[in-house]
Amino acid sequence: MDLGSVKRNLEKKEGTESASLINSMPSQVFDPFILHGLHIDLVERGRLICSMKVPPRLLNTAKSLHGGATASLVDLVGAAAIATVGSPLTGVSVEISVSFLDAAFVDDEIEIEAKVLRVGKSVGVVSVEIRKKKTGKIVAQGRHTKFLAVPSKM
Amino acid sequence: MDLGSVKRNLEKKEGTESASLINSMPSQVFDPFILHGLHIDLVERGRLICSMKVPPRLLNTAKSLHGGATASLVDLVGAAAIATVGSPLTGVSVEISVSFLDAAFVDDEIEIEAKVLRVGKSVGVVSVEIRKKKTGKIVAQGRHTKFLAVPSKM
Amino acid sequence: MDLGSVKRNLEKKEGTESASLINSMPSQVFDPFILHGLHIDLVERGRLICSMKVPPRLLNTAKSLHGGATASLVDLVGAAAIATVGSPLTGVSVEISVSFLDAAFVDDEIEIEAKVLRVGKSVGVVSVEIRKKKTGKIVAQGRHTKFLAVPSKM
Amino acid sequence: MDLGSVKRNLEKKEGTESASLINSMPSQVFDPFILHGLHIDLVERGRLICSMKVPPRLLNTAKSLHGGATASLVDLVGAAAIATVGSPLTGVSVEISVSFLDAAFVDDEIEIEAKVLRVGKSVGVVSVEIRKKKTGKIVAQGRHTKFLAVPSKM
Repeated sequence: MDLGSVKRNLEKKEGTESASLINSMPSQVFDPFILHGLHIDLVERGRLICSMKVPPRLLNTAKSLHGGATASLVDLVGAAAIATVGSPLTGVSVEISVSFLDAAFVDDEIEIEAKVLRVGKSVGVVSVEIRKKKTGKIVAQGRHTKFLAVPSKM
Repeated sequence: MDLGSVKRNLEKKEGTESASLINSMPSQVFDPFILHGLHIDLVERGRLICSMKVPPRLLNTAKSLHGGATASLVDLVGAAAIATVGSPLTGVSVEISVSFLDAAFVDDEIEIEAKVLRVGKSVGVVSVEIRKKKTGKIVAQGRHTKFLAVPSKM
Repeated sequence: MDLGSVKRNLEKKEGTESASLINSMPSQVFDPFILHGLHIDLVERGRLICSMKVPPRLLNTAKSLHGGATASLVDLVGAAAIATVGSPLTGVSVEISVSFLDAAFVDDEIEIEAKVLRVGKSVGVVSVEIRKKKTGKIVAQGRHTKFLAVPSKM
Repeated sequence: MDLGSVKRNLEKKEGTESASLINSMPSQVFDPFILHGLHIDLVERGRLICSMKVPPRLLNTAKSLHGGATASLVDLVGAAAIATVGSPLTGVSVEISVSFLDAAFVDDEIEIEAKVLRVGKSVGVVSVEIRKKKTGKIVAQGRHTKFLAVPSKM
């Protein structure tokens, strides 16, 4: 793609059409923007299962679940699973990695399972898998590492 | 944190307050939701520099730039940089990984630099660094790997 | 640590003592160097379980299983699991990531389980977990992404 | 590949031929096994450049630099770079990730550059790039995250 097109493309994505809507968004709307429509199916110590219908707002230009939305689910559902082991929901992300394995399309039912791998005094790590409910096919698998002690000690 | 609190917390984040706003959001609003306010400062073959003022909508509960938003910037700005090397802006994400190094707060000016590490026939990899403009302090560094051939061949 | 010490330390690790032993090592000894002593407990389509006693040669300076050895196990056992799904053992690594969760010491029995997450025409991804046999405690969890088509098409 | 072949292949790699050599290896030979032949070209606060000729012992079955060896270089040279910022060479690995970009063959001169991204009280992160000296082509890029406080506090 020529450089001008890349620029125009990114500027277009930057969103002149939706500008007024986006400008009116409240502070910290990010969490509900990602999580709205999520149902919690199971909470136990070290494990969390949620489900969700892929909503139109979280689609990418190929009309499948956005990579950034997928990473955000790994972040948020993973952090909640770490919190089940006793750590408060505070803490700071250190690392998130996600492998994208299959596309999920609008209205696909997805299941998000987070399993804690380790929670120590300072470092918690959780594995998060997103699957299609109907077929069991894995959409993404990621890990989220958090620093759990007071941020000033990081 | 007790299991009931984790559930309530995630459900609260799921966003009853902003529900009507979120329900009214158009399809594929994700890209402009992340990118609105981004400026492209440099485009050259294999390299892209953008800047942005951290907007209130992309904050987490600790009022700093959300990890999911950071990962989304690695996704989107990285993909645009890969596109400068000649590949069309299509392609499928294979892997995204992000290290979070420092918090950025509302109205902080951040600079996002993406450098292509490799673009071959099928696999493109890009490194993305987010820095504070004022201090040069690194906020996050990530990599984004894409499959560039026709998705059906993945 | 002062810069001179870092240099001396790395040079010392570089190994003057073992120099003649290392110089005499045959080509491609890397695989047996890592894998010697590994037992295959289960092979099925998409899944592999191996076990091993942590050998003295794979220890780091803290006398626990070396991070590089752990990453090499994720590489090798993961690649073998991908091969069970039908792809030949060729292919090229695209990405390896490992979270280190607990130390394993000399003679600890470890179990290495690799589960294929996806094998397509071009991209295979596998998750690898290393656990202590006695306690079930997770030592490391990683993912390995391979490009499976002819390398020249990568 | 059929399951029997995968088993035989992994067992063969496990190394009956080199068994006596490998059995005779001393404890903690891993560091010199990887690093022997490495030269330190530059040490400064937060940055380290080394060079090395790819040795026959670190080749994979495709006769290029082994992915496990590459990950081990990211581990070891990265840790040494973190140590230049003042932290002792102790500390525990939390995460290593590596993108493999190009093959390096026997006797290729490679340059390994490690740049510290962050060193705090507890968490240090370093980026490591391996390039071919002759062409500048990037062979691999990785990140290594360490926990720097007393391991018992992790």
